[in-house]
Amino acid sequence: MSQLFSEEYSAEVVAESFAGTSDPRLRQVLTSLVRHLHDFVKDVELTEAEWETAIGFLTDTGQTCTPTRQEFILLSDVLGVSMLVETINHRTGGTATESTVLGPFHMVASPVRQLGDDIALDGKGTPCLVSGQVTGPDGAPLAGATVDVWQTNEDGFYDVQQPDLQPQGNLRGIFTTDADGRFWFRSVVPRYYPIPDDGPVGKLLAATGRHPNRPAHLHFIAAADGYRTVTTHVFVADSPYLDSDAVFGVKDSLVRDTPEVDDAARAAEVGLANPFRTLAFDLSLLPA
Amino acid sequence: MSQLFSEEYSAEVVAESFAGTSDPRLRQVLTSLVRHLHDFVKDVELTEAEWETAIGFLTDTGQTCTPTRQEFILLSDVLGVSMLVETINHRTGGTATESTVLGPFHMVASPVRQLGDDIALDGKGTPCLVSGQVTGPDGAPLAGATVDVWQTNEDGFYDVQQPDLQPQGNLRGIFTTDADGRFWFRSVVPRYYPIPDDGPVGKLLAATGRHPNRPAHLHFIAAADGYRTVTTHVFVADSPYLDSDAVFGVKDSLVRDTPEVDDAARAAEVGLANPFRTLAFDLSLLPA
Ligand SMILES: [Fe+2]
Ligand SMILES: [Fe+2]
Repeated sequence: MSQLFSEEYSAEVVAESFAGTSDPRLRQVLTSLVRHLHDFVKDVELTEAEWETAIGFLTDTGQTCTPTRQEFILLSDVLGVSMLVETINHRTGGTATESTVLGPFHMVASPVRQLGDDIALDGKGTPCLVSGQVTGPDGAPLAGATVDVWQTNEDGFYDVQQPDLQPQGNLRGIFTTDADGRFWFRSVVPRYYPIPDDGPVGKLLAATGRHPNRPAHLHFIAAADGYRTVTTHVFVADSPYLDSDAVFGVKDSLVRDTPEVDDAARAAEVGLANPFRTLAFDLSLLPA
Repeated sequence: MSQLFSEEYSAEVVAESFAGTSDPRLRQVLTSLVRHLHDFVKDVELTEAEWETAIGFLTDTGQTCTPTRQEFILLSDVLGVSMLVETINHRTGGTATESTVLGPFHMVASPVRQLGDDIALDGKGTPCLVSGQVTGPDGAPLAGATVDVWQTNEDGFYDVQQPDLQPQGNLRGIFTTDADGRFWFRSVVPRYYPIPDDGPVGKLLAATGRHPNRPAHLHFIAAADGYRTVTTHVFVADSPYLDSDAVFGVKDSLVRDTPEVDDAARAAEVGLANPFRTLAFDLSLLPA
């Protein structure tokens, strides 16, 4: 015999309705969701007008989604939920490179590049030599690791946002580390950019006085046999918005300076105009 | 200077991002929402796959909405949130008729009826005389109060779900109480019915072993000058699903028997076939 609904026991009554859920994990998740959701409504004593506003906002958010636009992920991002899920599921205990959000601009099939290649195909931006080493947690180099990278161009766009740009694959590529676990390639200093803010999430940001920008960063996915893949960014230390990332992706351990090198011989050696910037980022992976 | 995101302080960091919100109530609501949402994610240690499932579910829910279908309200209903908001905003302290959810089948412009009219226009169902009195909390009768009623027919459909049915306005009408605050009309015993379960919310109900039905009920909105309008139902005591309403609308104080009257003279007097059922429901309103 079920108990009837009451303000006091609302969450318990709803949780009881899930007693017949065959998947115990689903029951656990829904029971916790209902408890926290009801606690929220009670905490703020949500009015009927506010509830209607919330229903309208969620509906607009769903209806803004298209095959190429995921407004609910954006909502999750700006509420810090995406970053929280990422962090909970990739705890490193400080013994390996920290992860951050994947973001919406990753491509499963990026072009394979050779070490030293220039991924800046559009001729824009400040030249930058990116380099690093992939190791295990003990510092042992991981030869043959793959390093998948992607970043914005000087105008703040990923190549997937400029589908007509030729050649394709601008500022994107997959590298393989050498015998010492090292990788290096030519690129440009990435630029900060706004997340799409012409939908409901943009209205939420505006209503809360928040800007839509992410600080400049270069995405990495580093993978090696027998190790846990790490999905992360390296952030540019002097970028605007470093302390107010719209999606809360910044971690102290992921921020790097991009010092300028003024050395014509070195520039000629790496194939960049002199002077150029450098960005060094080593990645330490945990065993699988 | 903002603090960077961490698992421990995730909700505080996101709440801090709302510091520039011009509307203090919006800031309060969002801060509480983020705290409870992050508590939920941490409580169950939501996996990335579960997060993806949730994003997909919310997106489907939004995309199921049309001008005549509001799937997010349904979701709110089956999670008990609609009923909680209703209850919080209409506390009576036990001194007046309790409220329950409005539901999606109310029409702003229902037909005006005369006391004693028969609202069962489709000729189906078990005849029932519905009657009651509208009073203030002290029991003083409220003459000239309006009583807006709507219910399902014998097949479990509201008239808005049968737009081709003639005449329109089946099982719906607005009555005005007499000098003693009394109302009465002819109808049929309402029948239980399922909420729409062919969308994402229906899938959620199926996955949790829940049926989509609401126990038989007659909707009321009672209004009188100088008093708070009450939106409620009267539930039929012997209906299936009385202890498992899919939207948690049942309150003990709103359940009534529908005893049969076998009295040819009385049947002739009220204009119903003998025998007939009766449903008595008095409504007590709080001062505005
Ligand atoms: Fe990015
Ligand atoms: Fe109903």
